[in-house]
Amino acid sequence: MHPFPFDVDQLRSTVETALESATQLSNDCPDRLRDAIRYSLLAGGKRLRPILTILSCQICGGSVEQALPAACAMEMIHTYSLIHDDLPAMDDDDLRRGQATNHIQFDEATAILAGDALLTLAFEVLSTQIENPVLASKTVLELAQAAGANGMVGGQQSDLNAESQTNLNIDDLISIHRLKTGKLITCAVRMGAILAQASPEQLDAMTKYGNAVGLAFQIADDLLDETGTVEKMGKGVQKDQSHHKLTYPALLGLDESKAQAHNLVDSAISALSIFNEQSKSLEALARYSIERDQ
Amino acid sequence: MHPFPFDVDQLRSTVETALESATQLSNDCPDRLRDAIRYSLLAGGKRLRPILTILSCQICGGSVEQALPAACAMEMIHTYSLIHDDLPAMDDDDLRRGQATNHIQFDEATAILAGDALLTLAFEVLSTQIENPVLASKTVLELAQAAGANGMVGGQQSDLNAESQTNLNIDDLISIHRLKTGKLITCAVRMGAILAQASPEQLDAMTKYGNAVGLAFQIADDLLDETGTVEKMGKGVQKDQSHHKLTYPALLGLDESKAQAHNLVDSAISALSIFNEQSKSLEALARYSIERDQ
Repeated sequence: MHPFPFDVDQLRSTVETALESATQLSNDCPDRLRDAIRYSLLAGGKRLRPILTILSCQICGGSVEQALPAACAMEMIHTYSLIHDDLPAMDDDDLRRGQATNHIQFDEATAILAGDALLTLAFEVLSTQIENPVLASKTVLELAQAAGANGMVGGQQSDLNAESQTNLNIDDLISIHRLKTGKLITCAVRMGAILAQASPEQLDAMTKYGNAVGLAFQIADDLLDETGTVEKMGKGVQKDQSHHKLTYPALLGLDESKAQAHNLVDSAISALSIFNEQSKSLEALARYSIERDQ
Repeated sequence: MHPFPFDVDQLRSTVETALESATQLSNDCPDRLRDAIRYSLLAGGKRLRPILTILSCQICGGSVEQALPAACAMEMIHTYSLIHDDLPAMDDDDLRRGQATNHIQFDEATAILAGDALLTLAFEVLSTQIENPVLASKTVLELAQAAGANGMVGGQQSDLNAESQTNLNIDDLISIHRLKTGKLITCAVRMGAILAQASPEQLDAMTKYGNAVGLAFQIADDLLDETGTVEKMGKGVQKDQSHHKLTYPALLGLDESKAQAHNLVDSAISALSIFNEQSKSLEALARYSIERDQ
């Protein structure tokens, strides 16, 4: 594993403090719902997406503080999607980030509501914590488009549909990955750039970076499901095979999958060439996206 | 039933055309998800909330067109909440608006995702269709606060929790109703006022109107569950008793519940006194909220 050219623990801690504070919620929120929201949101995790948002904002000339509302919103959307994906009617998982999934720890109704609440809270955070209304409105649009029916939610539906289909090819798989994971990862870096009031050229470079890293990250996820351990991953593994899921290694084999992931990381890094030395942070994160063991 | 001093069918049709158009979605959206979204969103219904938004906007000096993005967002949030509330893990209902509920017509996973997609789409519509970013950002904030953990989602959680509690009183019930239904109805009229760039006094009057009508509407719902028919309601009735739900008639009896609903409607109407003749439309809607048979 490469050491990061930035203090990853410090960034994670900044994000977690902000998430902690954003989920205090009012007395109107029932305790059980608040507990369920915080149980999943504050359960650790790599915090990859919020870190992408912050680094992108910094590289485009902005600050951690400017990026933080979008960083929190990203993690809220990501966490809600995990809670709903883990439900019995969806992927039916018991273990996530090394602990019982939300519906196991609480119950299905509470897990559905905690997901709904986190999804809603993401937009509340953007609209309250971003002072410039033009930037607030732009980030709401970015996030809604990436997370909704034409993005992440659509990708989850396609992924579920794919379980019952037998004649899918690599283009179908790329299309599912792009929706399910890719658009939200691209959104993470784009929101950071938008909050730094990046130039169109900078925003375009971040979009290319995000598209490439997003797909590389998902290929790595497919590979980890095949080769990882429950201990490292903190969630069930080899679930893909047992669910007959379409994956990169199933379609292309391990070696070719790894090669494609490396090519994507190279593309991501070359998209950063318009930036200065500071973009080493996103270079390192691109490498990490496929070299991680969890 | 009072005739309305405005063309309710025309307004409904305007809302439905806009909902139809907003859910065309891109080719990225899987057909099954698009179908599930449109199945529930375009299934008719009273369209009370979007009509409240439009009338409030008009009374405060705005136009139907100005109100329409928020009107559509309101109906998307309302419909998503019905889809999720009907799930087996929640209220477990088979019938809604006279047709099979979303998870019966499709499946549970699709129903969860269709709800998530509608919730997300509501914010996309606000941020794309409201041109003034200050107003876009303000309405996103209003809607997120009313629909989230401190509002509607919190109310649904409290309502579920209440089923296992035996010592609840009328204040507990009012508190649940305020969160589960009230805040969103108040949000409907507030968003209309905000989009008309209402004065603080006008916004305050609309808030009082919304709070009173929201509670009256919910008392009427409790009464209809007890006295209505499946044919009229298009959904299961007498579910509250069978679920041991806390209701107005159960706590106060039919007569006292009706009296309180009437008092609330009087309060709502008196809040409109600062407006001109045009506010007759919201007066009529307040009366309708408790005199309807569905």
